[in-house]
Amino acid sequence: MTQNIISGKEIAEAIKKEVREEVERLESLGVTPGLAVVLVGEDPASSVYVAMKEKAAKSLSIKSRQLTLPEDTSSSELEGIVAGLNADPKIHGILVQLPLPKHLDENALLSCIDPDKDVDGFHPMNIGRLSIGSDDAVAPCTPAGVVELLLRSGHDPEGKHVVVVGRSNIVGRPLATLLTGRKRGGNATVTIAHSRSEDLQSITKTADILVSAVGRADLIRAEMVKPGTVVVDVGVNRVVDESNAKGYRLVGDVAFEEVSQVVDAITPVPGGVGPMTIAMLLKNTVQLASRSVGEGDKGY
Amino acid sequence: MTQNIISGKEIAEAIKKEVREEVERLESLGVTPGLAVVLVGEDPASSVYVAMKEKAAKSLSIKSRQLTLPEDTSSSELEGIVAGLNADPKIHGILVQLPLPKHLDENALLSCIDPDKDVDGFHPMNIGRLSIGSDDAVAPCTPAGVVELLLRSGHDPEGKHVVVVGRSNIVGRPLATLLTGRKRGGNATVTIAHSRSEDLQSITKTADILVSAVGRADLIRAEMVKPGTVVVDVGVNRVVDESNAKGYRLVGDVAFEEVSQVVDAITPVPGGVGPMTIAMLLKNTVQLASRSVGEGDKGY
Repeated sequence: MTQNIISGKEIAEAIKKEVREEVERLESLGVTPGLAVVLVGEDPASSVYVAMKEKAAKSLSIKSRQLTLPEDTSSSELEGIVAGLNADPKIHGILVQLPLPKHLDENALLSCIDPDKDVDGFHPMNIGRLSIGSDDAVAPCTPAGVVELLLRSGHDPEGKHVVVVGRSNIVGRPLATLLTGRKRGGNATVTIAHSRSEDLQSITKTADILVSAVGRADLIRAEMVKPGTVVVDVGVNRVVDESNAKGYRLVGDVAFEEVSQVVDAITPVPGGVGPMTIAMLLKNTVQLASRSVGEGDKGY
Repeated sequence: MTQNIISGKEIAEAIKKEVREEVERLESLGVTPGLAVVLVGEDPASSVYVAMKEKAAKSLSIKSRQLTLPEDTSSSELEGIVAGLNADPKIHGILVQLPLPKHLDENALLSCIDPDKDVDGFHPMNIGRLSIGSDDAVAPCTPAGVVELLLRSGHDPEGKHVVVVGRSNIVGRPLATLLTGRKRGGNATVTIAHSRSEDLQSITKTADILVSAVGRADLIRAEMVKPGTVVVDVGVNRVVDESNAKGYRLVGDVAFEEVSQVVDAITPVPGGVGPMTIAMLLKNTVQLASRSVGEGDKGY
């Protein structure tokens, strides 16, 4: 029987409240945190995400600037736009919504963003900074959100065995970096498993904390967790649901109904990691604004 | 009973032979691979390492330039020297021997090296490149040596559970990056354990391949491994030995006598990972020389 459903939504609200206070403090210093969100093309999911980010930024008085570009934007056009944002003193954070259309090289584009404005923390320089524990690092929003969620729900990963399923550049890898680091939320023993792991179940059963970030519905079943585990579900998957007006509903990677019967605590989808990602994006934006005036929270 | 002592020395010789052939190929194109080795101060161990690297480079007709600087070299002096090497077209790889004297900031210094000449792969940009699987990455020599040693001794880590004890920026972290990557020598399930891990023995006993990179003699005992494990010992520790003319001898992290009775294969110290590190340094140097003329092996 589940003791505890961890509400990412509530924790995210608490973080947003702190971010709002920091925005007010910066305002009093004459700095308005500015976030640029670049969307290329008309992917429906991306459009929804961008709208959510914009709305959340505005609700905290962060100045948000959306640049919506046509699907056929060339690499050099996009680079030029990013260069302009790099040079704009009113912009402290630049986010290029992924995935980009197939003709654009994501890694090349992400490398054009000034690392000190790279609010998503995807620039190789920031990945490296995060790895060596530099105070100049920017932690990617979803992994940072997972760590905050664990800490604020009373599940400090220090010394614990965390199994991360998924090795993406956006979630799995940077999450392992944070969890094995020496800062707050670190000092965990971390296993990275993935699609090529042999006998996944024997690995997941050893977890004190299990994080799934694969993107496959029902990947994590009840028999794959031991009692007492804390489960964080990063997956967002559409499954057909005729009873829903949209014809689908969103679920995570974890078979919630059965797994929640076994484990000690679990995050829901939606309302778990999703709101945390947005809260950490806003936190990163304000942190970069603060750093741009040579002070403030150094973060990860 | 140990089936197999893995000779890093022999495997390193095979790699050096391949590197020599690549040097000859580059020579025929008018390119002599050039390695600059910067040593600050007179740390005896560092002096020995630098001399070994120089000798190995020369034996393969790699042009090696040693810069030995006094202990009290200032940060700006050292930065100036690195800048000169960055600009020198005859130098393809720059190595600053660590540790630096305490008054110098290692991370700041390493960040001054041109990432495309960063033969040790310690620049944050290269750590990031390695993490995202970029063809421009330079893999740090010791982790790359561990992976090569596993592959060439018939222990491909793909799909296997590798436990890495130690989370240093130089070995543990980049090794986990390589092993969880999607390239040759990757696709392993990887656990990073360290000094803050609770119940280390329960973790090490789950390993198919166990790598220790901590720097503590006798850290890994027989009861911490299961039969069939492959053990790679990265540690180099001095222990008092009156029977030795120097008064000490070098040992690894693994209690070799007892562990070798249990496991399937094991690397010795010395003669295991050490020679691999030097071989990979030479391989990296030649790879960077090859890239500098816009061709050749793209490596990791």
